[in-house]
Amino acid sequence: MSETTLDVVGIGNAVVDVLAQAEDSFLVRHDLAKGAMTLVDERASEKLYSGMGSAVEISGGSAANTMAGIASLGGNGAFIGKVKNDQLGEIFSHDITSVGVRYTTARATDGASTARCLIFVTPDAQRTMQTFLGASVALGPDDLDEAAIRDAQITYLEGYLWTSDSGRMALRKAAEIAKAAGRKVAFTLSDAFLVDAYRADFFEFIRDSVDILFANEIEITSLIEANNFDDALQISRDLCEILALTRSEHGSVIVSGNDTYIIDAAPVLDVVDTTGAGDLYAAGFLFGLTQGLGLHTCGRIGSIGAGEIVSHFGARPEVRLADMIASELD
Amino acid sequence: MSETTLDVVGIGNAVVDVLAQAEDSFLVRHDLAKGAMTLVDERASEKLYSGMGSAVEISGGSAANTMAGIASLGGNGAFIGKVKNDQLGEIFSHDITSVGVRYTTARATDGASTARCLIFVTPDAQRTMQTFLGASVALGPDDLDEAAIRDAQITYLEGYLWTSDSGRMALRKAAEIAKAAGRKVAFTLSDAFLVDAYRADFFEFIRDSVDILFANEIEITSLIEANNFDDALQISRDLCEILALTRSEHGSVIVSGNDTYIIDAAPVLDVVDTTGAGDLYAAGFLFGLTQGLGLHTCGRIGSIGAGEIVSHFGARPEVRLADMIASELD
Repeated sequence: MSETTLDVVGIGNAVVDVLAQAEDSFLVRHDLAKGAMTLVDERASEKLYSGMGSAVEISGGSAANTMAGIASLGGNGAFIGKVKNDQLGEIFSHDITSVGVRYTTARATDGASTARCLIFVTPDAQRTMQTFLGASVALGPDDLDEAAIRDAQITYLEGYLWTSDSGRMALRKAAEIAKAAGRKVAFTLSDAFLVDAYRADFFEFIRDSVDILFANEIEITSLIEANNFDDALQISRDLCEILALTRSEHGSVIVSGNDTYIIDAAPVLDVVDTTGAGDLYAAGFLFGLTQGLGLHTCGRIGSIGAGEIVSHFGARPEVRLADMIASELD
Repeated sequence: MSETTLDVVGIGNAVVDVLAQAEDSFLVRHDLAKGAMTLVDERASEKLYSGMGSAVEISGGSAANTMAGIASLGGNGAFIGKVKNDQLGEIFSHDITSVGVRYTTARATDGASTARCLIFVTPDAQRTMQTFLGASVALGPDDLDEAAIRDAQITYLEGYLWTSDSGRMALRKAAEIAKAAGRKVAFTLSDAFLVDAYRADFFEFIRDSVDILFANEIEITSLIEANNFDDALQISRDLCEILALTRSEHGSVIVSGNDTYIIDAAPVLDVVDTTGAGDLYAAGFLFGLTQGLGLHTCGRIGSIGAGEIVSHFGARPEVRLADMIASELD
């Protein structure tokens, strides 16, 4: 196996987040499932936007956030995902490139506009997301940068891509390329609604192709169809090499073979917006792995990344995470 | 004079701000004048953007920020300014409408894209702005909502509009309509570079058409060509009915005939980004005037608005200013 120049290549939806504060009553009035991500079409997105308060636009996308986090930690990364050649696409491309992530996926020249995710942040800092996938569903196997995937230590795949045929084909092909090159494949279940919709497919894909799985409590419990998280944890132990299971303010549990590591959440003075917490946990964890650190340290770096991201609006780091983790690496 | 339903109509550039943190060394490297607003063409804007860090997009525009502030204070306002029918134009329109400002200016269907202002926020919270005016310079006299101007107690004009022939014509016509309807005209000098460029024109316009003038220390001192602020203050006393002169962290001085009011800045725990401080001072001050409050109270409400806006990124209020000023209105 040749030496790699890329630590991680992430593949996911290329999305611009549109964030606004909202009261719980707004969620009720518009029948939005609190804390969840729901897919909507352009018309529904526009209708909801017209009822939304004054907003802030910040680049997002789950795997894209993770890659921005890895760059902020000092890692070498690339992102594969599709925007249109419109203003939001320009914003997305600028932001991910500006933090040092290699991003070369060809922009769509026609069809739907760049994906946007309306995010309603309630006073409890919880985020409720409504995503119009737009151009991002046009990502297909032909968009993969095969050299980057062969080159990267880890290929990180976003479960959200599973909802389109072309996205699913891209994920499968990326996993094959990585495997054939002797690299690791990481996967995140992304959202409980995906687990419900694609349980058998996910299970098979993980068993056959995934080395490192990210999931939160609800997602893993649903995947395994267990009664509770503890059962899910024991049953899923043999599912793949490493499981990183996140539990919001309760931290995370890492399972690898017979080993189990319990990781605390990083202390956060004021939780402002939980958007991107899972994405940045994955960033810290994967960065740690690529640096050859122990799983416990990987989890701690994940907690630090998640802690930074929930302390402000938006899902991209506002400070250099490399500075925050310096003491962990001694 | 009939009873008004609008408190203030603001006329200015319709701009989306693109904010990023930057080191002072970045300003030096790109030869940017710290703290100033500089106009750039699309090409220069794109070049600078490509060197800019990961950014956040938030609706801006000086008079537009002021109108958002007046709405947040509970006032009734309208905004006149031009965007293109592109994604940034949609964002601008959404944001100003969502806070309750009436905004009906027709969008440009061709020509330059919606204006954007690249804002570099240095660690000292100072902002340095590079604006590509785009579609906003297409605003002309025909875009004026004459009924709104006749209806509003105060028509508030942004000095930035002076740089284009059509904008200048729009400002002059708006002032005429307001005057003819027996309404007040307020004007902000906007930036020292405008005062340098248009000193004689500004002076004449203020003397002939302006009742309420907003300026910061540098702008008023330059307008009067005085040696220092104290001289400028005395000399400019007869320039118009009310002068509201802002002095950053030193608060403001209000001059009206022989009366002078010294207003403290509102205490701010952590100044994050000074973008919009002057705009929100004007919002508070004008709102106070439309409510028939004394000049000292108007200045205090201005200070409170400015204090809120510098405590976070972006130039639109994040909390309901009406709640913050409740005690001032007792």
